[in-house]
Amino acid sequence: MRLILNTCLYYPKVFYRTRSRQIDDTLTKLLSSKQEESNRQSIHKNEHVTIHDKILKIPRGTRDYHPSQMKIREEVFRTIIDCFKQHGADTIDTPVFELTTLLREKYGEDAKLIYELQDRVDDDDNNEKLALRYDLTVPFARYISQNKISAMKRYQIGKVYRHDSPKMTRGRYREFYQCDFDIAGCYDPMIPDAECIKIVVEILDKLALGQYKIYINHRKLLDAIFTVCGVPDKLFRSLSSTIDKLDKLPWDVVRNEMINEKGLSPEVVDRISRYVHMHVGNVNLIDQLRNDPQLSSNKLAIQALHDLDLLFRYLTLFNIIDKVIFDLKLARGLDYYTGVIFEAVLTKYQFNPKLDDDQIAVGSVAGGGRYDELVEKIDPKQRHVPCIGVSIGVERIFTVKEHQQTQLKTQSKTVETEIYVASAEKNFLEQRMKICAYLWENGFKAEMAYKRNPKLLDQLQYCEKHHIELCIIIGSSELEASTLKIRDVVTRNEFVIPRNQLANEIRIHLKKIRHKLADNKQQ
Amino acid sequence: MRLILNTCLYYPKVFYRTRSRQIDDTLTKLLSSKQEESNRQSIHKNEHVTIHDKILKIPRGTRDYHPSQMKIREEVFRTIIDCFKQHGADTIDTPVFELTTLLREKYGEDAKLIYELQDRVDDDDNNEKLALRYDLTVPFARYISQNKISAMKRYQIGKVYRHDSPKMTRGRYREFYQCDFDIAGCYDPMIPDAECIKIVVEILDKLALGQYKIYINHRKLLDAIFTVCGVPDKLFRSLSSTIDKLDKLPWDVVRNEMINEKGLSPEVVDRISRYVHMHVGNVNLIDQLRNDPQLSSNKLAIQALHDLDLLFRYLTLFNIIDKVIFDLKLARGLDYYTGVIFEAVLTKYQFNPKLDDDQIAVGSVAGGGRYDELVEKIDPKQRHVPCIGVSIGVERIFTVKEHQQTQLKTQSKTVETEIYVASAEKNFLEQRMKICAYLWENGFKAEMAYKRNPKLLDQLQYCEKHHIELCIIIGSSELEASTLKIRDVVTRNEFVIPRNQLANEIRIHLKKIRHKLADNKQQ
Repeated sequence: MRLILNTCLYYPKVFYRTRSRQIDDTLTKLLSSKQEESNRQSIHKNEHVTIHDKILKIPRGTRDYHPSQMKIREEVFRTIIDCFKQHGADTIDTPVFELTTLLREKYGEDAKLIYELQDRVDDDDNNEKLALRYDLTVPFARYISQNKISAMKRYQIGKVYRHDSPKMTRGRYREFYQCDFDIAGCYDPMIPDAECIKIVVEILDKLALGQYKIYINHRKLLDAIFTVCGVPDKLFRSLSSTIDKLDKLPWDVVRNEMINEKGLSPEVVDRISRYVHMHVGNVNLIDQLRNDPQLSSNKLAIQALHDLDLLFRYLTLFNIIDKVIFDLKLARGLDYYTGVIFEAVLTKYQFNPKLDDDQIAVGSVAGGGRYDELVEKIDPKQRHVPCIGVSIGVERIFTVKEHQQTQLKTQSKTVETEIYVASAEKNFLEQRMKICAYLWENGFKAEMAYKRNPKLLDQLQYCEKHHIELCIIIGSSELEASTLKIRDVVTRNEFVIPRNQLANEIRIHLKKIRHKLADNKQQ
Repeated sequence: MRLILNTCLYYPKVFYRTRSRQIDDTLTKLLSSKQEESNRQSIHKNEHVTIHDKILKIPRGTRDYHPSQMKIREEVFRTIIDCFKQHGADTIDTPVFELTTLLREKYGEDAKLIYELQDRVDDDDNNEKLALRYDLTVPFARYISQNKISAMKRYQIGKVYRHDSPKMTRGRYREFYQCDFDIAGCYDPMIPDAECIKIVVEILDKLALGQYKIYINHRKLLDAIFTVCGVPDKLFRSLSSTIDKLDKLPWDVVRNEMINEKGLSPEVVDRISRYVHMHVGNVNLIDQLRNDPQLSSNKLAIQALHDLDLLFRYLTLFNIIDKVIFDLKLARGLDYYTGVIFEAVLTKYQFNPKLDDDQIAVGSVAGGGRYDELVEKIDPKQRHVPCIGVSIGVERIFTVKEHQQTQLKTQSKTVETEIYVASAEKNFLEQRMKICAYLWENGFKAEMAYKRNPKLLDQLQYCEKHHIELCIIIGSSELEASTLKIRDVVTRNEFVIPRNQLANEIRIHLKKIRHKLADNKQQ
């Protein structure tokens, strides 16, 4: 039985060949006009919808990830995880909230940024007070302590929460991913420290984010400098936070904060300035500080300079000494660091007040350091488990990757579908379903329209829009002859195959298409 | 220069060969005694540590994932994501919290389980009230609405939060993963619905969790039954929640709840009982209900039965009709369902009061349904975007997988390290570092001890404990001869290779080892 078909919507086999060119032309036009429309719409995408008194928005400082962003995210995570695994790391996961008592007193001035959960009166758990985790380091220390672990190399990827003023353009959110690698255990000095910095180099190189530098300093050296400059002990940690702002603020502003907010005298601040502005190359700076009349007799300084000397030797063995800069300005904000600290900054995306519109500033993309006392502080038995870790700033890396993609004007495929099962005629739903089931069962990535009688044009458009490689087109003549028509979506070439050769033929054609694509990319 | 070595700790080359057997024996003994110790310790692992007034614990109803559990989790996610991608799904991510107003009135009786965040007085955002997401469905509807999407096939994996009484043994947590696949858009009836159920079958088959059944029902049919039995409209949704308990509770208990808590008369309840206990096979049940004198004139019943008839035809085309059971007892707890609902239950792990100690009950491992009105309810312009989705109960699947692994007594490798760089002599740290750097740069997964002069025994023990395939052992004689000694960790065979052939030789030997392993597995 042959049905009489609506000429515009469905193409019976007799018309198919002659109308094929027309379809292709219409398809091209439609796709380009849809693209324009989608560009227009995307400008308004992030605005809030506020009609009929209903407010539809997401919490401030958070964001949805769209499929194209998820694609970038997956690739970045894959690269990072591969590298962590290359270095023999295990992985763990911990809850998104912890007891508030655990998080308190671990973050210094930043503790005010912790998100707390509401107490529940109907609760039968003695009112456990909970807060969203601020980073992955304190939960890791809790894990180490609670499980009585003495040595562990682990990575962890998860979201953390900070009730910060969101500056979206700089890639700062209230909810963001952290991607941490840590080595816990009593080891000989600087060996794990050197490996953490090696990992940063490997990851940044593989991600191809452009040139970068890794700034290195030592918390004990900063403390020694504060001591010899005459800073009171109790200000050490909060002064570190102030100095840490030097990557974004000029010295004058930071100087004023030290004098007006921290209450230091201008003489003390100027003494600090002389130290933090020393720049004479890594090894020379160590020598200069060792010969400094005041530091040379300070125990902390002696130990820190010994550590750094050793670290630079190890980094030389790891072939990465040219990437690192010993910088006394680097302080890191968090309270818990006790030794070597470091931070990687992309040269091209450094903070700069004169940025053009098409430029972005992302600041540091990786940072970390040694925190030898955190587990001890938490542990009921005060077990000593020294740790060093690095956190990869994935959110900023996503921003850079998105920026790179925008600049290149490349659009990547978000779905992985290889084959679309279409029909040119009415009443072929059941045939399409059977073929789809066959393709899924044979491991292919396949889709079909969720309509009883979809228009051929819509089906082909879907294929082109989603960069699907092949399209099967079934109709009554193919059904009778036990054949199937296959269309190469990019070239729009069509060919007929025996139905019982389907899996094999598709495998061959997908291989050819991918081969060609890889060749084109190489050229 | 040759160093004089401590005989017990380090093995210079002259002693090496003769002591080799002794080392191997000691290694075997040590490893087995360590295993016993670790077994003893793990019994106490999950207890709280409460010494010195410090309480170290994680929030009630949450858990850490240890490396061996992460390994299972990664494999389960990989299988599920592969399947979602096979069906052409995009993926998105949304924040872990949403505005409380969005979550309110979406979950019926369960709304009391929502976790709210504390208001912040120091806030400049007009006191946005926030709550942790309860599922991924409402955030998806918000995403669809906010981005003005009319059609989308997406999967999303993320943690959700319910302030439930945790029953850990049954795999119920306050924080748990959801793994959702949804199809949004105006399509012809039952085509996306059939695909969602097909996906459940594909995933459960690939995960090899044992036999299972998929129960199917229709919310409109339940509503029709309630109507003809004489239940007041306003009780429909809360009665669904009650009926949903029939998978865990006997009819008597549920009957009492209907009479005493919902206030239904015994006659109404007995009328309901007659319907929900009908069991005559899928197609026969449709026929029987169609001929039911009361339902046959009910519009909702007619539509639901038409849907189910069509669905069963499509499931036959998808070759999965033998997995599904039309069950009027299935109700699903959530308010937002409007059409077909379904739930997959593992036959072997069904709830059963007579479970032995080594058995577990997990209940349903996948469930979902059609929710055609949720987007409309949220959308400021009341846009109609019908949806159907399925949620894979991954936490319960992890439990089953862990249970399977315990039963098989298999222990899988958690780190992926292929090569360990060891030394039999003192002062070889720099050599080990250089070789490690070379291996990392050539894409190998390599580790070394973080000690200047580690004991050879400790290094070899590390390799065996972590199932590392190869171990490079360097010493002064190898350094002089520009060679390296390689040890096959499992067979304990050792062989010497030229140093400049390192990458190539390791590739060859890893390939051999893996080939052998695959052969052994097949046998």
